[in-house]
Amino acid sequence: MNFMQALRDRWNAVDSLVCVGLDPEPAKLPARFVDHPDAVFDFCRAIVDATAAYACAFKPQIAHFAALGAEDALQRLVAHIHAAHPGIPVILDSKRGDIGSTAQHYAAEAFDRHGADAVTVNPYLGRDSLQPFLDRADKGVIVLCRTSNPGAGDLQDLCVTDHGRDGTPSASRPLYQLVAEKVAREWNGNGNCALVVGATWPEQLREVREIVGDVPFLVPGVGAQGGDVEAVVTNAKTADGAGLVVSSSRAILYASSGDDFAVAAASSAKALRDEINRHR
Amino acid sequence: MNFMQALRDRWNAVDSLVCVGLDPEPAKLPARFVDHPDAVFDFCRAIVDATAAYACAFKPQIAHFAALGAEDALQRLVAHIHAAHPGIPVILDSKRGDIGSTAQHYAAEAFDRHGADAVTVNPYLGRDSLQPFLDRADKGVIVLCRTSNPGAGDLQDLCVTDHGRDGTPSASRPLYQLVAEKVAREWNGNGNCALVVGATWPEQLREVREIVGDVPFLVPGVGAQGGDVEAVVTNAKTADGAGLVVSSSRAILYASSGDDFAVAAASSAKALRDEINRHR
Repeated sequence: MNFMQALRDRWNAVDSLVCVGLDPEPAKLPARFVDHPDAVFDFCRAIVDATAAYACAFKPQIAHFAALGAEDALQRLVAHIHAAHPGIPVILDSKRGDIGSTAQHYAAEAFDRHGADAVTVNPYLGRDSLQPFLDRADKGVIVLCRTSNPGAGDLQDLCVTDHGRDGTPSASRPLYQLVAEKVAREWNGNGNCALVVGATWPEQLREVREIVGDVPFLVPGVGAQGGDVEAVVTNAKTADGAGLVVSSSRAILYASSGDDFAVAAASSAKALRDEINRHR
Repeated sequence: MNFMQALRDRWNAVDSLVCVGLDPEPAKLPARFVDHPDAVFDFCRAIVDATAAYACAFKPQIAHFAALGAEDALQRLVAHIHAAHPGIPVILDSKRGDIGSTAQHYAAEAFDRHGADAVTVNPYLGRDSLQPFLDRADKGVIVLCRTSNPGAGDLQDLCVTDHGRDGTPSASRPLYQLVAEKVAREWNGNGNCALVVGATWPEQLREVREIVGDVPFLVPGVGAQGGDVEAVVTNAKTADGAGLVVSSSRAILYASSGDDFAVAAASSAKALRDEINRHR
Protein backbone atom coordinates (compact mmCIF):
# COMPACT_ATOMS: atom_id res chain seq x y z
CA MET A 1 0.00 0.00 0.00
CA ASN A 2 1.19 3.52 -0.80
CA PHE A 3 -0.14 5.63 2.05
CA MET A 4 -0.84 8.84 0.15
CA GLN A 5 -2.55 7.05 -2.73
CA ALA A 6 -4.56 4.88 -0.34
CA LEU A 7 -5.66 7.94 1.59
CA ARG A 8 -6.84 9.76 -1.55
CA ASP A 9 -8.64 6.63 -2.77
CA ARG A 10 -10.33 6.19 0.56
CA TRP A 11 -11.43 9.85 0.81
CA ASN A 12 -13.28 9.27 -2.47
CA ALA A 13 -14.49 5.72 -1.88
CA VAL A 14 -16.39 6.49 1.31
CA ASP A 15 -16.72 10.26 0.92
CA SER A 16 -15.25 10.67 4.39
CA LEU A 17 -12.43 12.62 6.02
CA VAL A 18 -12.96 10.89 9.39
CA CYS A 19 -10.07 9.11 11.08
CA VAL A 20 -11.07 6.84 13.95
CA GLY A 21 -8.56 7.14 16.78
CA LEU A 22 -7.96 3.94 18.74
CA ASP A 23 -7.02 4.96 22.30
CA PRO A 24 -8.12 2.06 24.51
CA GLU A 25 -8.45 2.90 28.22
CA PRO A 26 -9.39 -0.08 30.41
CA ALA A 27 -11.36 2.07 32.87
CA LYS A 28 -13.60 3.39 30.09
CA LEU A 29 -14.39 0.13 28.30
CA PRO A 30 -18.00 -1.09 28.23
CA ALA A 31 -19.00 -3.37 31.11
CA ARG A 32 -18.86 -6.49 28.98
CA PHE A 33 -15.06 -6.16 28.76
CA VAL A 34 -14.46 -6.31 32.52
CA ASP A 35 -12.30 -9.36 33.23
CA HIS A 36 -12.29 -10.13 29.51
CA PRO A 37 -8.96 -11.85 28.72
CA ASP A 38 -8.30 -9.97 25.45
CA ALA A 39 -10.30 -6.82 26.18
CA VAL A 40 -8.10 -4.27 24.41
CA PHE A 41 -7.97 -6.19 21.14
CA ASP A 42 -11.61 -7.28 21.13
CA PHE A 43 -12.89 -3.81 21.99
CA CYS A 44 -10.78 -2.12 19.32
CA ARG A 45 -11.67 -4.76 16.74
CA ALA A 46 -15.37 -4.21 17.39
CA ILE A 47 -14.90 -0.44 16.99
CA VAL A 48 -12.93 -0.93 13.76
CA ASP A 49 -15.53 -3.24 12.23
CA ALA A 50 -18.41 -0.95 13.23
CA THR A 51 -16.84 2.29 11.97
CA ALA A 52 -14.90 1.14 8.89
CA ALA A 53 -17.65 2.28 6.52
CA TYR A 54 -17.12 5.87 7.66
CA ALA A 55 -13.32 5.86 8.11
CA CYS A 56 -10.66 7.20 5.77
CA ALA A 57 -8.03 5.93 8.23
CA PHE A 58 -7.54 4.34 11.64
CA LYS A 59 -5.10 5.81 14.14
CA PRO A 60 -4.00 3.66 17.08
CA GLN A 61 -2.18 5.71 19.74
CA ILE A 62 0.74 3.57 20.87
CA ALA A 63 1.07 4.83 24.47
CA HIS A 64 -2.37 3.43 25.27
CA PHE A 65 -1.10 -0.02 24.32
CA ALA A 66 2.42 0.37 25.71
CA ALA A 67 1.27 1.42 29.18
CA LEU A 68 -0.62 -1.90 29.35
CA GLY A 69 2.13 -4.04 27.85
CA ALA A 70 -0.28 -4.69 24.99
CA GLU A 71 2.00 -4.38 21.95
CA ASP A 72 0.83 -7.80 20.85
CA ALA A 73 -2.79 -6.58 20.78
CA LEU A 74 -1.68 -3.60 18.69
CA GLN A 75 0.08 -5.84 16.16
CA ARG A 76 -2.96 -8.09 15.84
CA LEU A 77 -5.25 -5.06 15.54
CA VAL A 78 -3.30 -3.55 12.64
CA ALA A 79 -3.20 -6.98 10.96
CA HIS A 80 -6.96 -7.26 11.40
CA ILE A 81 -7.55 -3.85 9.82
CA HIS A 82 -5.43 -4.79 6.80
CA ALA A 83 -7.10 -8.20 6.43
CA ALA A 84 -10.73 -7.25 7.07
CA HIS A 85 -10.73 -3.74 5.64
CA PRO A 86 -8.13 -3.63 2.87
CA GLY A 87 -7.47 -0.14 1.56
CA ILE A 88 -7.94 1.68 4.87
CA PRO A 89 -4.55 3.04 5.91
CA VAL A 90 -3.33 2.77 9.50
CA ILE A 91 -1.56 5.72 11.11
CA LEU A 92 0.52 4.78 14.14
CA ASP A 93 0.40 7.79 16.45
CA SER A 94 3.70 7.56 18.28
CA LYS A 95 5.33 11.01 17.79
CA ARG A 96 8.80 9.50 17.62
CA GLY A 97 11.98 11.49 17.15
CA ASP A 98 15.60 10.46 17.71
CA ILE A 99 19.04 10.58 16.12
CA GLY A 100 19.47 8.78 12.80
CA SER A 101 20.72 5.38 13.93
CA THR A 102 17.99 5.11 16.54
CA ALA A 103 15.36 6.54 14.21
CA GLN A 104 15.99 3.51 11.98
CA HIS A 105 14.80 1.33 14.85
CA TYR A 106 11.72 3.48 15.40
CA ALA A 107 10.89 3.21 11.70
CA ALA A 108 11.24 -0.56 11.99
CA GLU A 109 8.97 -0.54 15.07
CA ALA A 110 6.20 1.35 13.25
CA PHE A 111 6.36 -0.02 9.73
CA ASP A 112 7.89 -3.49 10.01
CA ARG A 113 6.83 -4.72 13.41
CA HIS A 114 3.41 -3.09 13.68
CA GLY A 115 2.62 -2.88 9.97
CA ALA A 116 1.56 0.77 10.06
CA ASP A 117 1.17 2.71 6.80
CA ALA A 118 2.06 6.07 8.35
CA VAL A 119 3.53 7.39 11.60
CA THR A 120 3.51 10.68 13.48
CA VAL A 121 6.96 12.16 14.17
CA ASN A 122 8.43 15.07 16.13
CA PRO A 123 10.63 17.59 14.25
CA TYR A 124 12.65 18.96 17.21
CA LEU A 125 15.78 16.93 16.34
CA GLY A 126 15.91 18.14 12.74
CA ARG A 127 15.81 16.60 9.31
CA ASP A 128 18.36 13.82 9.75
CA SER A 129 16.30 12.43 12.63
CA LEU A 130 13.36 12.01 10.22
CA GLN A 131 15.32 10.74 7.22
CA PRO A 132 14.82 7.00 7.95
CA PHE A 133 11.07 7.68 7.89
CA LEU A 134 11.16 9.99 4.85
CA ASP A 135 13.13 7.36 2.93
CA ARG A 136 10.23 4.93 3.17
CA ALA A 137 8.48 6.48 0.16
CA ASP A 138 5.37 4.28 0.42
CA LYS A 139 4.83 5.22 4.05
CA GLY A 140 3.32 8.43 5.38
CA VAL A 141 5.42 10.70 7.61
CA ILE A 142 3.15 13.00 9.59
CA VAL A 143 5.19 15.76 11.21
CA LEU A 144 4.00 17.63 14.31
CA CYS A 145 3.45 21.26 13.37
CA ARG A 146 0.86 23.01 15.62
CA THR A 147 -0.47 20.50 18.16
CA SER A 148 -3.94 20.57 19.72
CA ASN A 149 -2.95 20.91 23.39
CA PRO A 150 -3.22 24.13 25.44
CA GLY A 151 0.57 24.47 25.83
CA ALA A 152 1.28 24.00 22.12
CA GLY A 153 2.39 27.60 21.83
CA ASP A 154 5.16 27.37 24.46
CA LEU A 155 7.64 26.54 21.71
CA GLN A 156 5.59 26.33 18.52
CA ASP A 157 4.46 29.99 18.63
CA LEU A 158 7.88 31.47 19.27
CA CYS A 159 8.93 33.90 16.56
CA VAL A 160 11.95 32.50 14.74
CA THR A 161 14.41 33.95 12.29
CA ASP A 162 16.71 31.82 10.21
CA HIS A 163 19.52 32.92 7.98
CA GLY A 164 20.18 32.28 4.31
CA ARG A 165 23.51 31.06 2.93
CA ASP A 166 24.74 34.63 2.73
CA GLY A 167 23.83 35.23 6.36
CA THR A 168 20.84 37.48 5.70
CA PRO A 169 18.06 36.89 8.19
CA SER A 170 14.68 35.82 6.86
CA ALA A 171 11.41 37.39 7.87
CA SER A 172 10.38 36.39 11.36
CA ARG A 173 7.45 33.96 11.77
CA PRO A 174 6.23 31.46 14.36
CA LEU A 175 8.15 28.20 14.68
CA TYR A 176 5.17 26.09 13.57
CA GLN A 177 5.06 28.02 10.29
CA LEU A 178 8.74 27.40 9.72
CA VAL A 179 8.20 23.67 10.36
CA ALA A 180 5.38 23.75 7.79
CA GLU A 181 7.70 25.44 5.28
CA LYS A 182 10.51 22.96 5.87
CA VAL A 183 8.19 20.00 5.42
CA ALA A 184 6.56 21.35 2.27
CA ARG A 185 9.72 22.71 0.60
CA GLU A 186 12.61 20.58 1.86
CA TRP A 187 11.52 17.34 3.50
CA ASN A 188 8.74 16.21 1.15
CA GLY A 189 10.89 15.01 -1.76
CA ASN A 190 9.10 11.68 -1.80
CA GLY A 191 5.68 13.30 -1.53
CA ASN A 192 4.97 11.25 1.60
CA CYS A 193 4.71 14.01 4.21
CA ALA A 194 1.71 15.32 6.09
CA LEU A 195 1.36 17.67 9.07
CA VAL A 196 -0.34 17.51 12.46
CA VAL A 197 -2.33 20.71 13.02
CA GLY A 198 -4.82 20.74 15.89
CA ALA A 199 -8.53 21.42 15.39
CA THR A 200 -8.37 23.69 18.41
CA TRP A 201 -6.45 26.34 16.41
CA PRO A 202 -8.59 27.35 13.39
CA GLU A 203 -6.54 30.45 12.56
CA GLN A 204 -3.31 28.44 12.52
CA LEU A 205 -4.96 25.82 10.31
CA ARG A 206 -5.68 28.53 7.75
CA GLU A 207 -2.15 29.95 7.93
CA VAL A 208 -0.51 26.55 7.53
CA ARG A 209 -2.79 25.65 4.62
CA GLU A 210 -1.66 28.82 2.84
CA ILE A 211 1.97 27.80 3.30
CA VAL A 212 1.87 24.14 2.26
CA GLY A 213 -0.60 23.86 -0.63
CA ASP A 214 -2.11 20.38 -0.83
CA VAL A 215 -0.04 18.63 1.87
CA PRO A 216 -2.56 16.65 3.96
CA PHE A 217 -3.28 17.56 7.58
CA LEU A 218 -3.93 15.12 10.38
CA VAL A 219 -6.30 17.13 12.59
CA PRO A 220 -6.81 15.92 16.16
CA GLY A 221 -8.87 17.84 18.66
CA VAL A 222 -12.49 17.70 17.50
CA GLY A 223 -14.82 16.11 20.03
CA ALA A 224 -13.46 15.85 23.56
CA GLN A 225 -10.86 18.59 23.02
CA GLY A 226 -13.43 21.07 21.72
CA GLY A 227 -12.30 21.82 18.16
CA ASP A 228 -15.03 23.28 15.91
CA VAL A 229 -15.69 21.15 12.82
CA GLU A 230 -16.98 23.97 10.62
CA ALA A 231 -13.94 26.14 11.35
CA VAL A 232 -11.58 23.23 10.71
CA VAL A 233 -13.08 22.34 7.34
CA THR A 234 -13.53 25.90 6.15
CA ASN A 235 -10.02 26.95 7.09
CA ALA A 236 -8.03 23.82 6.30
CA LYS A 237 -9.56 21.99 3.34
CA THR A 238 -7.68 21.90 0.06
CA ALA A 239 -9.03 23.38 -3.17
CA ASP A 240 -10.78 20.10 -3.98
CA GLY A 241 -12.51 19.96 -0.60
CA ALA A 242 -10.31 17.24 0.87
CA GLY A 243 -6.76 17.24 2.29
CA LEU A 244 -7.90 16.47 5.84
CA VAL A 245 -7.73 13.48 8.16
CA VAL A 246 -9.98 14.61 10.99
CA SER A 247 -9.30 12.38 13.95
CA SER A 248 -11.76 11.66 16.72
CA SER A 249 -11.03 9.13 19.44
CA ARG A 250 -12.93 9.43 22.69
CA ALA A 251 -16.19 10.74 21.17
CA ILE A 252 -16.39 7.62 18.97
CA LEU A 253 -14.84 4.96 21.22
CA TYR A 254 -16.84 5.82 24.29
CA ALA A 255 -20.07 7.00 22.68
CA SER A 256 -21.87 4.42 24.81
CA SER A 257 -20.72 2.30 27.73
CA GLY A 258 -23.51 -0.22 27.18
CA ASP A 259 -23.76 -3.23 24.94
CA ASP A 260 -24.66 -0.89 22.07
CA PHE A 261 -21.15 0.64 22.17
CA ALA A 262 -20.29 -0.45 18.62
CA VAL A 263 -23.55 0.84 17.15
CA ALA A 264 -23.08 4.09 19.05
CA ALA A 265 -19.50 4.37 17.77
CA ALA A 266 -20.69 3.92 14.20
CA SER A 267 -23.37 6.57 14.69
CA SER A 268 -20.81 8.96 16.13
CA ALA A 269 -18.39 8.36 13.23
CA LYS A 270 -21.21 8.77 10.68
CA ALA A 271 -22.38 11.97 12.36
CA LEU A 272 -18.86 13.42 12.23
CA ARG A 273 -18.51 12.42 8.57
CA ASP A 274 -21.79 14.13 7.74
CA GLU A 275 -20.98 17.25 9.73
CA ILE A 276 -17.61 17.54 7.98
CA ASN A 277 -19.18 17.00 4.57
CA ARG A 278 -21.72 19.78 5.13
CA HIS A 279 -18.83 22.26 5.15
CA ARG A 280 -16.64 20.88 2.35
CA MET B 1 14.55 5.73 44.81
CA ASN B 2 14.72 9.49 44.25
CA PHE B 3 16.51 9.87 40.93
CA MET B 4 18.40 13.08 41.62
CA GLN B 5 19.57 11.94 45.05
CA ALA B 6 20.55 8.51 43.71
CA LEU B 7 22.52 10.12 40.91
CA ARG B 8 24.43 12.39 43.29
CA ASP B 9 25.11 9.49 45.65
CA ARG B 10 26.33 7.35 42.78
CA TRP B 11 28.62 10.07 41.35
CA ASN B 12 30.36 10.08 44.74
CA ALA B 13 30.22 6.38 45.54
CA VAL B 14 32.07 5.26 42.39
CA ASP B 15 33.71 8.57 41.46
CA SER B 16 32.28 8.22 37.96
CA LEU B 17 30.19 10.30 35.57
CA VAL B 18 29.88 7.44 33.07
CA CYS B 19 26.44 6.29 31.94
CA VAL B 20 26.40 2.97 30.10
CA GLY B 21 23.98 3.10 27.20
CA LEU B 22 22.19 -0.17 26.44
CA ASP B 23 21.43 -0.21 22.70
CA PRO B 24 21.32 -3.89 21.72
CA GLU B 25 21.67 -4.58 17.99
CA PRO B 26 21.38 -8.26 17.05
CA ALA B 27 23.80 -7.93 14.12
CA LYS B 28 26.54 -6.58 16.40
CA LEU B 29 26.28 -9.07 19.26
CA PRO B 30 29.24 -11.36 19.99
CA ALA B 31 29.21 -14.68 18.16
CA ARG B 32 28.16 -16.62 21.24
CA PHE B 33 24.72 -14.93 21.09
CA VAL B 34 23.86 -16.17 17.58
CA ASP B 35 20.75 -18.33 17.85
CA HIS B 36 20.71 -17.70 21.59
CA PRO B 37 17.07 -17.76 22.71
CA ASP B 38 17.28 -14.75 25.07
CA ALA B 39 20.20 -12.97 23.42
CA VAL B 40 19.14 -9.37 24.03
CA PHE B 41 18.56 -9.85 27.75
CA ASP B 42 21.58 -12.05 28.38
CA PHE B 43 23.94 -9.75 26.43
CA CYS B 44 22.71 -6.63 28.21
CA ARG B 45 22.79 -8.33 31.61
CA ALA B 46 26.40 -9.36 31.05
CA ILE B 47 27.29 -5.78 30.07
CA VAL B 48 25.49 -4.39 33.13
CA ASP B 49 27.21 -6.75 35.53
CA ALA B 50 30.63 -6.10 33.98
CA THR B 51 30.37 -2.30 33.94
CA ALA B 52 28.36 -1.55 37.09
CA ALA B 53 31.47 -0.69 39.08
CA TYR B 54 32.14 2.23 36.72
CA ALA B 55 28.57 3.38 36.06
CA CYS B 56 26.68 6.29 37.59
CA ALA B 57 23.62 5.23 35.56
CA PHE B 58 22.39 2.81 32.92
CA LYS B 59 20.46 4.06 29.90
CA PRO B 60 18.49 1.53 27.84
CA GLN B 61 17.33 3.02 24.51
CA ILE B 62 13.79 1.76 24.01
CA ALA B 63 13.69 1.70 20.17
CA HIS B 64 16.36 -0.98 20.15
CA PHE B 65 14.04 -3.20 22.18
CA ALA B 66 10.78 -2.14 20.51
CA ALA B 67 12.00 -2.86 16.97
CA LEU B 68 12.62 -6.43 18.11
CA GLY B 69 9.40 -6.84 20.08
CA ALA B 70 11.62 -7.24 23.13
CA GLU B 71 9.78 -5.11 25.71
CA ASP B 72 9.78 -8.10 28.02
CA ALA B 73 13.59 -8.27 27.90
CA LEU B 74 13.71 -4.55 28.73
CA GLN B 75 11.45 -5.01 31.75
CA ARG B 76 13.54 -7.91 33.04
CA LEU B 77 16.75 -5.96 32.41
CA VAL B 78 15.63 -2.96 34.47
CA ALA B 79 14.45 -5.31 37.22
CA HIS B 80 17.85 -7.01 37.15
CA ILE B 81 19.68 -3.69 37.49
CA HIS B 82 17.58 -2.72 40.49
CA ALA B 83 17.98 -6.13 42.13
CA ALA B 84 21.66 -6.78 41.45
CA HIS B 85 22.96 -3.21 41.56
CA PRO B 86 20.75 -1.24 43.94
CA GLY B 87 21.40 2.48 43.89
CA ILE B 88 22.29 2.74 40.20
CA PRO B 89 19.51 4.73 38.52
CA VAL B 90 18.05 3.63 35.19
CA ILE B 91 17.31 6.26 32.53
CA LEU B 92 14.84 5.10 29.88
CA ASP B 93 15.85 6.86 26.68
CA SER B 94 12.55 7.16 24.83
CA LYS B 95 12.25 10.90 23.97
CA ARG B 96 8.49 10.85 24.43
CA GLY B 97 6.22 13.85 23.97
CA ASP B 98 2.45 13.99 23.57
CA ILE B 99 -0.62 15.84 24.79
CA GLY B 100 -1.44 15.60 28.48
CA SER B 101 -3.86 12.67 28.54
CA THR B 102 -1.55 10.56 26.38
CA ALA B 103 1.55 11.74 28.22
CA GLN B 104 0.05 10.10 31.33
CA HIS B 105 0.23 6.78 29.51
CA TYR B 106 3.83 7.38 28.43
CA ALA B 107 4.75 8.18 32.04
CA ALA B 108 3.09 4.91 33.06
CA GLU B 109 5.04 3.06 30.33
CA ALA B 110 8.40 4.39 31.55
CA PHE B 111 8.00 4.47 35.31
CA ASP B 112 5.35 1.89 36.17
CA ARG B 113 5.70 -0.74 33.48
CA HIS B 114 9.45 -0.60 32.89
CA GLY B 115 10.50 0.62 36.32
CA ALA B 116 12.75 3.41 35.05
CA ASP B 117 14.00 6.10 37.42
CA ALA B 118 14.21 8.79 34.74
CA VAL B 119 13.09 9.30 31.17
CA THR B 120 14.12 11.50 28.24
CA VAL B 121 11.36 13.73 26.85
CA ASN B 122 10.87 16.09 23.90
CA PRO B 123 9.80 19.70 24.63
CA TYR B 124 8.18 20.56 21.25
CA LEU B 125 4.61 20.16 22.56
CA GLY B 126 5.14 22.53 25.50
CA ARG B 127 4.93 22.34 29.24
CA ASP B 128 1.54 20.67 29.63
CA SER B 129 2.82 17.73 27.58
CA LEU B 130 5.58 17.20 30.17
CA GLN B 131 3.50 17.83 33.28
CA PRO B 132 2.64 14.15 33.94
CA PHE B 133 6.38 13.46 34.01
CA LEU B 134 7.28 16.58 36.03
CA ASP B 135 4.65 15.64 38.63
CA ARG B 136 6.52 12.43 39.45
CA ALA B 137 8.87 14.22 41.83
CA ASP B 138 11.00 11.15 42.56
CA LYS B 139 11.61 10.51 38.89
CA GLY B 140 14.05 12.33 36.61
CA VAL B 141 12.73 14.24 33.59
CA ILE B 142 15.52 14.77 31.09
CA VAL B 143 14.47 17.30 28.46
CA LEU B 144 16.01 17.42 24.98
CA CYS B 145 17.86 20.72 24.62
CA ARG B 146 20.73 20.55 22.08
CA THR B 147 20.94 17.03 20.68
CA SER B 148 24.11 15.33 19.41
CA ASN B 149 23.06 14.68 15.80
CA PRO B 150 24.30 16.66 12.76
CA GLY B 151 20.85 18.13 12.04
CA ALA B 152 20.25 19.27 15.62
CA GLY B 153 20.47 22.88 14.56
CA ASP B 154 17.63 22.71 12.00
CA LEU B 155 15.20 23.82 14.70
CA GLN B 156 17.27 24.05 17.87
CA ASP B 157 19.58 26.79 16.57
CA LEU B 158 16.85 29.06 15.22
CA CYS B 159 16.88 32.48 16.84
CA VAL B 160 13.69 32.94 18.82
CA THR B 161 12.05 35.91 20.42
CA ASP B 162 9.28 35.59 22.97
CA HIS B 163 7.18 38.31 24.48
CA GLY B 164 6.64 39.29 28.11
CA ARG B 165 3.20 39.87 29.63
CA ASP B 166 3.28 43.48 28.46
CA GLY B 167 4.07 42.38 24.92
CA THR B 168 7.69 43.54 24.90
CA PRO B 169 9.92 41.19 22.96
CA SER B 170 12.79 39.56 24.81
CA ALA B 171 16.33 39.43 23.54
CA SER B 172 16.72 36.98 20.70
CA ARG B 173 18.59 33.71 21.35
CA PRO B 174 18.70 30.18 19.92
CA LEU B 175 15.76 27.91 20.65
CA TYR B 176 17.90 25.44 22.63
CA GLN B 177 18.88 28.24 25.03
CA LEU B 178 15.24 29.18 25.52
CA VAL B 179 14.43 25.52 26.28
CA ALA B 180 17.25 25.51 28.83
CA GLU B 181 15.82 28.68 30.44
CA LYS B 182 12.30 27.27 30.56
CA VAL B 183 13.47 24.06 32.17
CA ALA B 184 15.67 25.78 34.76
CA ARG B 185 13.29 28.63 35.64
CA GLU B 186 9.77 27.34 35.02
CA TRP B 187 9.56 23.55 34.69
CA ASN B 188 11.92 22.45 37.48
CA GLY B 189 9.67 23.17 40.46
CA ASN B 190 10.21 19.66 41.80
CA GLY B 191 13.97 19.81 41.20
CA ASN B 192 13.72 16.69 39.04
CA CYS B 193 14.76 18.08 35.64
CA ALA B 194 17.90 17.52 33.63
CA LEU B 195 18.84 18.39 30.04
CA VAL B 196 20.15 16.48 27.04
CA VAL B 197 23.09 18.37 25.53
CA GLY B 198 25.24 16.54 22.99
CA ALA B 199 28.97 16.02 23.46
CA THR B 200 29.41 16.98 19.82
CA TRP B 201 28.66 20.65 20.64
CA PRO B 202 31.20 21.85 23.24
CA GLU B 203 30.41 25.55 22.81
CA GLN B 204 26.70 24.94 23.33
CA LEU B 205 27.47 22.86 26.42
CA ARG B 206 29.23 25.88 27.91
CA GLU B 207 26.42 28.26 27.01
CA VAL B 208 23.74 26.00 28.47
CA ARG B 209 25.75 25.46 31.67
CA GLU B 210 25.90 29.24 32.14
CA ILE B 211 22.12 29.44 31.83
CA VAL B 212 21.02 26.59 34.10
CA GLY B 213 23.42 26.51 37.04
CA ASP B 214 23.64 23.04 38.55
CA VAL B 215 20.94 21.27 36.51
CA PRO B 216 22.48 17.94 35.43
CA PHE B 217 23.24 17.22 31.78
CA LEU B 218 22.82 13.89 30.05
CA VAL B 219 25.59 14.04 27.45
CA PRO B 220 25.42 11.55 24.57
CA GLY B 221 27.85 11.62 21.68
CA VAL B 222 31.25 10.66 23.06
CA GLY B 223 32.72 7.58 21.42
CA ALA B 224 31.11 6.58 18.09
CA GLN B 225 29.68 10.05 17.48
CA GLY B 226 33.03 11.77 18.00
CA GLY B 227 32.47 14.09 20.97
CA ASP B 228 35.65 15.20 22.76
CA VAL B 229 35.75 14.21 26.43
CA GLU B 230 38.07 17.00 27.58
CA ALA B 231 35.92 19.68 25.93
CA VAL B 232 32.75 18.17 27.41
CA VAL B 233 34.05 18.07 30.96
CA THR B 234 35.79 21.43 30.84
CA ASN B 235 32.80 23.23 29.36
CA ALA B 236 29.92 21.48 31.06
CA LYS B 237 30.91 20.40 34.58
CA THR B 238 29.32 22.11 37.54
CA ALA B 239 31.31 24.07 40.15
CA ASP B 240 31.84 20.90 42.19
CA GLY B 241 33.23 19.00 39.18
CA ALA B 242 30.14 16.88 38.60
CA GLY B 243 26.70 17.59 37.05
CA LEU B 244 27.29 15.28 34.09
CA VAL B 245 25.95 11.93 32.97
CA VAL B 246 28.27 11.14 30.07
CA SER B 247 26.66 8.39 28.05
CA SER B 248 28.54 5.94 25.88
CA SER B 249 26.80 3.04 24.17
CA ARG B 250 28.49 1.49 21.14
CA ALA B 251 32.09 2.03 22.32
CA ILE B 252 31.33 0.04 25.48
CA LEU B 253 28.81 -2.52 24.22
CA TYR B 254 30.79 -3.56 21.17
CA ALA B 255 34.33 -3.08 22.49
CA SER B 256 34.98 -6.71 21.52
CA SER B 257 33.00 -9.18 19.46
CA GLY B 258 34.77 -12.14 21.04
CA ASP B 259 34.12 -14.07 24.21
CA ASP B 260 35.93 -11.33 26.12
CA PHE B 261 33.18 -8.82 25.26
CA ALA B 262 32.23 -8.22 28.91
CA VAL B 263 35.82 -7.71 30.05
CA ALA B 264 36.39 -5.39 27.10
CA ALA B 265 33.23 -3.45 27.94
CA ALA B 266 34.40 -3.01 31.53
CA SER B 267 37.80 -1.79 30.31
CA SER B 268 36.13 0.68 27.98
CA ALA B 269 33.85 2.01 30.73
CA LYS B 270 36.77 2.30 33.15
CA ALA B 271 38.89 4.09 30.54
CA LEU B 272 36.10 6.60 29.92
CA ARG B 273 35.64 7.15 33.65
CA ASP B 274 39.36 7.78 34.06
CA GLU B 275 39.54 10.09 31.04
CA ILE B 276 36.60 12.12 32.35
CA ASN B 277 38.11 12.30 35.83
CA ARG B 278 41.40 13.65 34.49
CA HIS B 279 39.55 16.80 33.42
CA ARG B 280 37.18 17.34 36.36
